[in-house]
Order: sequence, then structure tokens, then C-alpha cells
Amino acid sequence: MRIYLAGPEVFLPEPAALGAAKKAICARHGLVGVFPIDDPTTAPSGPPDWRRIHAACEMHMRGCDALVANLTPFRGAGADAGTAYELGFMRALGRPVFGYTHIPGEYRARVQARRDGRALRDHEGLEVEDFGLADNLMLEGAIAASGGMLLRANAPLGWTDLSLFEACVAAAARRLAAA
Amino acid sequence: MRIYLAGPEVFLPEPAALGAAKKAICARHGLVGVFPIDDPTTAPSGPPDWRRIHAACEMHMRGCDALVANLTPFRGAGADAGTAYELGFMRALGRPVFGYTHIPGEYRARVQARRDGRALRDHEGLEVEDFGLADNLMLEGAIAASGGMLLRANAPLGWTDLSLFEACVAAAARRLAAA
Repeated sequence: MRIYLAGPEVFLPEPAALGAAKKAICARHGLVGVFPIDDPTTAPSGPPDWRRIHAACEMHMRGCDALVANLTPFRGAGADAGTAYELGFMRALGRPVFGYTHIPGEYRARVQARRDGRALRDHEGLEVEDFGLADNLMLEGAIAASGGMLLRANAPLGWTDLSLFEACVAAAARRLAAA
Repeated sequence: MRIYLAGPEVFLPEPAALGAAKKAICARHGLVGVFPIDDPTTAPSGPPDWRRIHAACEMHMRGCDALVANLTPFRGAGADAGTAYELGFMRALGRPVFGYTHIPGEYRARVQARRDGRALRDHEGLEVEDFGLADNLMLEGAIAASGGMLLRANAPLGWTDLSLFEACVAAAARRLAAA
């Protein structure tokens, strides 16, 4: 089984090393990890870099059986938009999606909000989801609906800590083996 | 043609009114707008609210021919994670995806970053995409690959301003009619 490894770790100073470490963990659990910046076997040569990277990531996803996403808040209250994009992509393809987050708290606790009647609102008056979830309900809804799971850290973890990733991969391997 | 209207406007104090205004604009351009919180014709009755909302949004998306997403930065440097999720979902279904953003600047200009050799890095040392795009390359890559387009405001616009939305719907209607 091939697992697409989504997450903002592609932005680390040594992304290939982190990708190799994630793949080694996948291998220990009988899975093949596919990292977004892995060389695609074929890639269009014409378009600019950003379009080739996008095309390669979509090709990688189409060739994977499931997705494990790092949904740790990234430059704001919620998950990286690119990672959320990929979660939606794999969900629409009907593949099981799993996630983990290095920040233990609920989404609503990360946004400066006040109670306004029944709703929780931010400083602009926009509603803050109040379901006790780790992030936007579409992400956790997709994970639940696909038969996946979301793991939350008990204490904040750094970008290169792979302990929760390994727990998520182990859980994914069990679920995929049972399916 | 039915258009799914993705974006964080569902969090406004009067989301249904905003949804109705967006649908009226779609109708003027010969399209049927579908707002995420529209009542689904059928919905599962058992699961908790957040799972029913997720299920309804996915059902709405599956029934739409294209997506128009408000990708305005939301509680951070980039687009709302739920909206990015939906963009990925519709892209994987093979539907054209369009977007617009109310903040004119490039993504890299919204992140406190410094040049480190060839890379631009944030305060954690994580790379900042340096392509001159409005957001993560997966979003704009998907829009380009699907034959859609991304419109950027010339000056910041408020959440209830629908002028750029209308320009995006008009462009989408032209593209869809030509396809």
C-alpha cells in the first residue's frame, strides 16, 4: 500500500531528509511512503516550476492508496492550505485519509473569540466553529467519513518530531490491513 | 450549470443573506449557485452536527459542475483550510475550479521572511513559496490545470463586498459556456 505524506514539512530546510525518515517509518509498518517532492517518474517540461510541482503532487496522489496529513496549524489558526487541498483531493478520489496535529488544543481555543448568544465570534464577527474539533469540520469530517482517524499531540511537538506521525502510520496500517 | 460557492462567508453573522446575494449574482450570469449551508434534500439524521454539515457539503459538491472559491486569507497567511479542502475535492472530481481573493498582495509578502541563499524563510526557518502567487501553489496550480482562473482584488475588500465575486462568476460563466 502506498501512502501520500502530506504536510508543510516540504518547507523545512532539509525536506528530503525528513521525507526519507518518514518513508523509513512507513516501511517499518509495511507501507510505502510517497513524499510530495519525490521525483516524479514523468513530468511535463514546459510549464513554470510551480505548475510542475503541482502536477507532480497530483500524480503522486493518484498513485497512492491513502493519505496521512500533518494538520498542525501553519502560519495561522489552522492547517496549511496546501495540505487541506490534498486531503480534499484524496477524499474525493475515495481513498482513506488520516491526520495528526502537533498542537494539542482545540481550534476554538486558538482564535481570540467571544461568546455572542449561542455563537463564538472572532474580532471581525466571523463565527468560530464550536465543535471541539482540532480544525475546520471539513477536515475532520472527511477523516471520519473515510474511516480514517485524527491523532492529536498531548503536548506541542516540533516539526521534525516524528513520534505522532509514527503513531498515525501504525494506526493507518492497521486500518488498511483490516479493510 | 450548478456552481458550488466555497469560502469562509459561511461564518458571517448572516450567512444565508450573503448566500442569497451570491446566488442572485450567479442567476444573472445564467448559473445556479449552491451555498454550502443550503439545506440538503436528504441528510443523515444520526451523526453529530459537524458530521452532518460535512456530509451535506460533500453532497452539494458532488452535484455541482464547477466551484468558485473565496481564497481570501483567513485567520492567518493563507486561505481557509475548509475552502482549500473543497477546492481539492472538486479538482479531484475533474470539475473546473475558479477562485478570487480580496487581498491584493502576493503570499510571500504576507509572511515575515528573510532571504537565505536562494530561499525565502520565515521565523521558524520554513521556506516561503517564492513564485509570486497569491497562495500555496497547489491552489493556483489546480485552478490553472482545470482551466479556471484566479482573480485578485486591486485593493482590500470587505467580506460582504461581492464585486470581485461577480467578476469571477462572469469569467466562470464564459469559460463554462465555451467548454
